[in-house]
Amino acid sequence: MTKKQFRTLASPETARETIADLEIGGRTERVGLDSARGRVLAERVDAELDVPGFDRASMDGYAVRASDTVGADEVDPVVLDLAGAVHAGTAPEGSVDPGSCMEISTGAVMPRGADAVVVVERTDEIETEGEPRIELRTAVAPGDSVMVAGADIAAGARALAPGTRFTPREIGLLSALGIDEVPVRTRPRVGIISTGDELVRPGEPLESERGQIYDVNSYTVAAGVEAAGGEPVVYPHVGDDYEQMEALLRTAAAECDLVVSSGSTSASAVDVIYRVIEEQGERLLHGVAVKPGKPMLVGRIDQPADGDETPTQSAYIGLPGYPVSALTIFQTFVAPAIRAAAGQREPETATIAGHMAVEARHEEGRLRLMPVGLLEDETSETLVYPVDKGSGATTSLVDADGVIEVSADTEYLAAGESVTVQLFSSSVRPPSLLGIGEDDPALNELLDLLDSPRYLALGSREGMRRLRNGIPDFAVVAGDPVRESEAVELGGWSREWGLLVPAGNPDDIDSLGDLVDCEVRFINRDTNSGLRTSLSNALAALADERSVSRHSLVESIDGFSATVNAFESPAKRILTGRADVGLGLRTTAEKHSLDFVSLGDQPVNVLGNPNRLAKPAFERLRAGLLELPEHGESLSGYQFADE
Amino acid sequence: MTKKQFRTLASPETARETIADLEIGGRTERVGLDSARGRVLAERVDAELDVPGFDRASMDGYAVRASDTVGADEVDPVVLDLAGAVHAGTAPEGSVDPGSCMEISTGAVMPRGADAVVVVERTDEIETEGEPRIELRTAVAPGDSVMVAGADIAAGARALAPGTRFTPREIGLLSALGIDEVPVRTRPRVGIISTGDELVRPGEPLESERGQIYDVNSYTVAAGVEAAGGEPVVYPHVGDDYEQMEALLRTAAAECDLVVSSGSTSASAVDVIYRVIEEQGERLLHGVAVKPGKPMLVGRIDQPADGDETPTQSAYIGLPGYPVSALTIFQTFVAPAIRAAAGQREPETATIAGHMAVEARHEEGRLRLMPVGLLEDETSETLVYPVDKGSGATTSLVDADGVIEVSADTEYLAAGESVTVQLFSSSVRPPSLLGIGEDDPALNELLDLLDSPRYLALGSREGMRRLRNGIPDFAVVAGDPVRESEAVELGGWSREWGLLVPAGNPDDIDSLGDLVDCEVRFINRDTNSGLRTSLSNALAALADERSVSRHSLVESIDGFSATVNAFESPAKRILTGRADVGLGLRTTAEKHSLDFVSLGDQPVNVLGNPNRLAKPAFERLRAGLLELPEHGESLSGYQFADE
Repeated sequence: MTKKQFRTLASPETARETIADLEIGGRTERVGLDSARGRVLAERVDAELDVPGFDRASMDGYAVRASDTVGADEVDPVVLDLAGAVHAGTAPEGSVDPGSCMEISTGAVMPRGADAVVVVERTDEIETEGEPRIELRTAVAPGDSVMVAGADIAAGARALAPGTRFTPREIGLLSALGIDEVPVRTRPRVGIISTGDELVRPGEPLESERGQIYDVNSYTVAAGVEAAGGEPVVYPHVGDDYEQMEALLRTAAAECDLVVSSGSTSASAVDVIYRVIEEQGERLLHGVAVKPGKPMLVGRIDQPADGDETPTQSAYIGLPGYPVSALTIFQTFVAPAIRAAAGQREPETATIAGHMAVEARHEEGRLRLMPVGLLEDETSETLVYPVDKGSGATTSLVDADGVIEVSADTEYLAAGESVTVQLFSSSVRPPSLLGIGEDDPALNELLDLLDSPRYLALGSREGMRRLRNGIPDFAVVAGDPVRESEAVELGGWSREWGLLVPAGNPDDIDSLGDLVDCEVRFINRDTNSGLRTSLSNALAALADERSVSRHSLVESIDGFSATVNAFESPAKRILTGRADVGLGLRTTAEKHSLDFVSLGDQPVNVLGNPNRLAKPAFERLRAGLLELPEHGESLSGYQFADE
Repeated sequence: MTKKQFRTLASPETARETIADLEIGGRTERVGLDSARGRVLAERVDAELDVPGFDRASMDGYAVRASDTVGADEVDPVVLDLAGAVHAGTAPEGSVDPGSCMEISTGAVMPRGADAVVVVERTDEIETEGEPRIELRTAVAPGDSVMVAGADIAAGARALAPGTRFTPREIGLLSALGIDEVPVRTRPRVGIISTGDELVRPGEPLESERGQIYDVNSYTVAAGVEAAGGEPVVYPHVGDDYEQMEALLRTAAAECDLVVSSGSTSASAVDVIYRVIEEQGERLLHGVAVKPGKPMLVGRIDQPADGDETPTQSAYIGLPGYPVSALTIFQTFVAPAIRAAAGQREPETATIAGHMAVEARHEEGRLRLMPVGLLEDETSETLVYPVDKGSGATTSLVDADGVIEVSADTEYLAAGESVTVQLFSSSVRPPSLLGIGEDDPALNELLDLLDSPRYLALGSREGMRRLRNGIPDFAVVAGDPVRESEAVELGGWSREWGLLVPAGNPDDIDSLGDLVDCEVRFINRDTNSGLRTSLSNALAALADERSVSRHSLVESIDGFSATVNAFESPAKRILTGRADVGLGLRTTAEKHSLDFVSLGDQPVNVLGNPNRLAKPAFERLRAGLLELPEHGESLSGYQFADE
C-alpha cells in the first residue's frame, strides 16, 4: 500500500497566484438585452444617437414661441391662436407662427417655430368669434418644459464603460439607445468530474452494502461555478481506470476552459489523475499547506489539435474528495479565478467579528480554514463555535456560516478569544435562535414555525450540557432530566416510546423482558438520546424486579451497543432487515407500518437559556409552542400541554 | 384637454400594504438539483436515509478489532494476520476475526467483526512464513477512524427547513441524501406591458421626426422582475386604443400572476388603463404621495373563466411612464412583493451615510425619492450629490448610486447636511474618481484605462465651476480656460477643431467667414463646451478683422443658437440632413467621412482637485495619461504631450 507523499507543500499565496496565472477563458460573445442581466460588458458602449432624438415636450400644455408670452401673468394673460395639436408618437403638422400656439402632450415633438411649453394648468381654452383660442396666464423662457434633443445622452457620448455589470439600470440606458444586443465577457466553461468507483448520482438507487455513496461534489461545484459566473458542464464520474480517466479528462479539456475534478478518496485514483496530468499536460503545483485541501493539484491538460490548428491547453484544478474540503477549496481558490475570467467583481468580503463560544484546538502545522457557526448572545454580540463533524460530513456544509482562518502556528483558540469569520456569503445571518438537544418529530414541526432557527440534534444529554455552558438559546430534553435549576421551562409535550418490531411482530415481542430473553438483533439509540435514558431506567427497574444486575440484562441483548443517531434510524434498520427490534416512538412505528410495543410516555421539555430570553425570536418560539397541538395532531402517541 | 386629478393621494405605507395584500403567486413546483441554486425550498426536507449508509473507514489503513490492539506501541507492536483488502465502492469479502485485520481504504465499508481503523502511517507490512502480516505500532479504541452509519445525518432527521434558499452548500446536503428533485416556490410570472404609441423596441429603426422613442421600461422592469426572483413575460406594447388595451391586459392577466404596466406619458393612455381596470377588474388604489410615482395604480384584473372554473383575478400594478420613475417605483413598491411571492429574502438594506456636497432644493409636498451619486472625499468620507436631469432622463439611471428619501415637509437639504443613502444594491460602491468637464474621444480612451471612474460630460465651463466648488476629483477643460490657480495640471493633449461639412463640401465652406457669409444652416455646441468657447473667440477675432460687432456676425449665422450636447451630435445632424455646417473635431469628420474646415488646435487639460490627489486612483489616472498616446493614436488631429 503506497501513499502519495507531498514533499513540499506550496503556500496558499503561491496556489492563488498559480491559479490566477492559468488565464481561463476571456472571450467575448454577444447577448440580447433580455439575457444581459448579471453579465459583464466587454467593450465600451458609446451613444450612436441622441436621446431624446428630438426636442421633446416634458409637460402637457401648449407649445409656444417664448417671445409671445412676455408679460403674461394671472391678471394680464396673453391670448394666442390655436394652430393644432401634437401628441406623442406623431409628427407635428404645421408650425407655431408668431401669435399662435399648439396643444402638445408630454413626450411629443416640439413643432417648428415653438421653443417652450406653457403647462396646461396655467392656461384656459376660450373661444373668440367661434375660433378656439388659448389664454396663457404665465410667461415662459425659451427651453421651458422642453427637453432638447440629446439632453439625456448625446450621440458620441460615452455611455457605458467596459467591465460594467448589467443591472436593470444599465439595461435601461441601452434600451434608450436602441441597443438590443451587447458584447459581454463569455462565461468560462468549467468541466466538472467526480472520481471514485463508489459514487452514485442522486436519484439513482444506492447499494450501501457495497460502500456506495451519493456524488455530492458534482452538484455543489456546479452550483459554485454558476454562482461565480461560469457555465458548469458536469461529466459522468469515473473510477480509477487510467484509460477511462485519460479519455474523460481529454474530452473535458477539449470542451471546456477549465476542468475541475474532485479526487476520489482512494489514493489510487489520485495517482491516476496525477499520471494523466504529468503525461498528457503539465503539472504546475501539487500540495498546498492548507487544511482542508492539502492534495490540491493545479496544471494544464493538452487539448487535442483540431485538424491543422496548433494544439492548445485547458486549465486543470484537482480538488480534494471530501465535500466540505472540496467546496471550501473551490470557494477559496477556484471561484476567484472563475469570477476574474467572467469579469465579475469579487464580492465584498463579508466578514463578521465575534468571540469564540468554546475553546477550539488546532493540531496541524498548516493554515486551517475552520468551519464555524454563528450565534448572537443576549447583548447581540456574535459568538462563534466550530462546526466539525469531520470533513467527510456534508451536514457541516449547512451547519456552518463561514470559516475562520487559523494560522499554522496557532495551537488553540481560547473561549472568549476574538476572531473574524469569513462568511460564506454576505447574506449569511446568525440564526434567530440556536437550539441543541433531542431529535423529535413534534420539535421538527415547531422549528418549521420559527424564522431561520438552527437546531443541532445532538441529543438531550448534550443539549443540557451545552445549555449549562451557556451556549445555545434553548435546549430540548427528553426523558426525566437532572433538573437544570437556572433553565426556564418554556413548554413541552409527552411522547410514547417503546420497541419497534416488524409488522406482524414475528418474534412475538410483548415487553422489555422479551427483548432480554428472546434471540433477536436489537438496534439501540446513542447515549445522548433521551430514549436511551428512558430505556436504561426501564432496564434498571427490570433488573431490580428480577434481582439481577443491569449489566447482565444488557449483556444478553444482542446489539445493545449498536446505536444509531436519529429517531427514525432504528425503523430503517428493521425495514431493511438489519435488526429485529429497535428503540423508538409509536409515531415512527405507525408511519412505517411497523408494530409497536409501548414502554411508556416520556416528557419532552423545551428549556430556555435564562440570559437570552429577551431575544425577540423567543416570542415566536413561545407562540409556536401554543400552536403546536394543531401542527402535531397527526403524531400518534403525543400529548400536548394544553390538550 | 383634461387631466386625471388625484384627489386623495395614498400614503407610501398604504401603497406598500395594498400591494402586499395582493398575495401574488405562492405555488410550488419541483425542480432538478441542477436548477435549484437560488430557489427557495417550499417544504421541509427530512433525511430518508442514513449518511453514510454504512460504517465507513475515514482513513486509509487496516480495519481491526480494537481489542486486538491493546498495548500496541512503537516499541512493542502487535502483529495481525492480513485477511484481505476492501476498497471504496466494493463490498468487503469475509470478516475480521480475532487476530486478523483487513487492508481498508478511506470511504470503504468496515468489514464484519472490525470496529476501528489503524492508520497506515502507524503500520508496517511484514512477512512471516511467506504470509503477509501487519505490524501495528499503536493501540486504537472502538470507533477510531470510523464514521458510523448515520453519523453525518441520520434517517428521519430534519435536513432543511422550508424557506431555505439554495446555495451550493444546501445542494451538497441534498446530493448526499440522494435527492435529485426538490419542491420549490414557483417564480411568480409577471406580465410586463409598456403603453404608448410612440414606443419602438430596441433594435428596430426609430423615426425621431415622428416623436418615436425606444421602449426602456419593458427591459428594465423585466430585469428587475428577474432580479427579484420572478419570471418576466414581456408583451408587445400598445397605444391608447381601449379595445387593444383591454385585450392585452386580459391576455396578460390570464397568463400571469401579476401584470405590471408602465403608463404612457400621454394622459389619454392612462385614462384607458384606468377604465379597463375599473370595468374589467377592481381598483384598489390610485395615486400615491411620493415623487416620482404619483400616478401609481393598484388593482386586480378579472381572469377569463376557463370552462366551468370559477373566474379568478390577477394582480395589477401600473407604474409611471418615465423610466427613472418607473424603475424607482418598481424597486420600492413592487420588487418586495415579488420577492415575498418567490420566497426570497429581502436584501440587507444597503445604506451608506454621507454629507450633501451641494445644496438640494425640494419643492413638493410629498415624500421624494431623490436619485443621488456618491463620491469619496480626501478623508474617505462619503459626499452625496443629486443626480437629476429630470425624470425623463435615462442617464440618471446609471449616474446615480442610490436614493435619499426627502420627507414631504423638508424644503431643502443644505450643503454639508448628513444624509443616509439607500443604495441601489449592496454591491454599489462610490466611483474611484469623479470627473466633470468636456467630452472628448481621447478622454473616453483615458476613462477606459481607469477602474470604475464616473465622468459627467457637462462641459468645460461646468467642470471648472464645480472644481472651484471642490466637488469633482478632476475636471477636463478644453480651450483656453481662465486659470484655476489651485487646480493641479495632470496632463493633457491638443485637438484640431473646426467646421464639419458634408462630404464633397457642397456649400464650398473654406473659412469661418464663409459660415457668416453663406446661406447655410449651422449646428452649434452648448455654451459649456470648450469648442463653443474657441468658436466664440474666433468669431470675436473675425469681428475685429471686419470691424463689425460680434453680435452682427452671430446674427447672420442661421442656427447659431441651435445647440447639441456632445462632440458627435453635430455630425449626426449633418448626416441626417438637418444641418449644413457643424462645430466639431477633425477626428469626428474623419470617422463619419465628412469634410472638415480646420479652425485651429485647442488644448485639453486634465486638472486635479488639489485636496484629493492622495486618492489612490490618481496614480492610475497619471499612468493612464502616459499610456494615452498609444491608445489615442487613431484619433486624427490629436497631439499628445510626449509625442
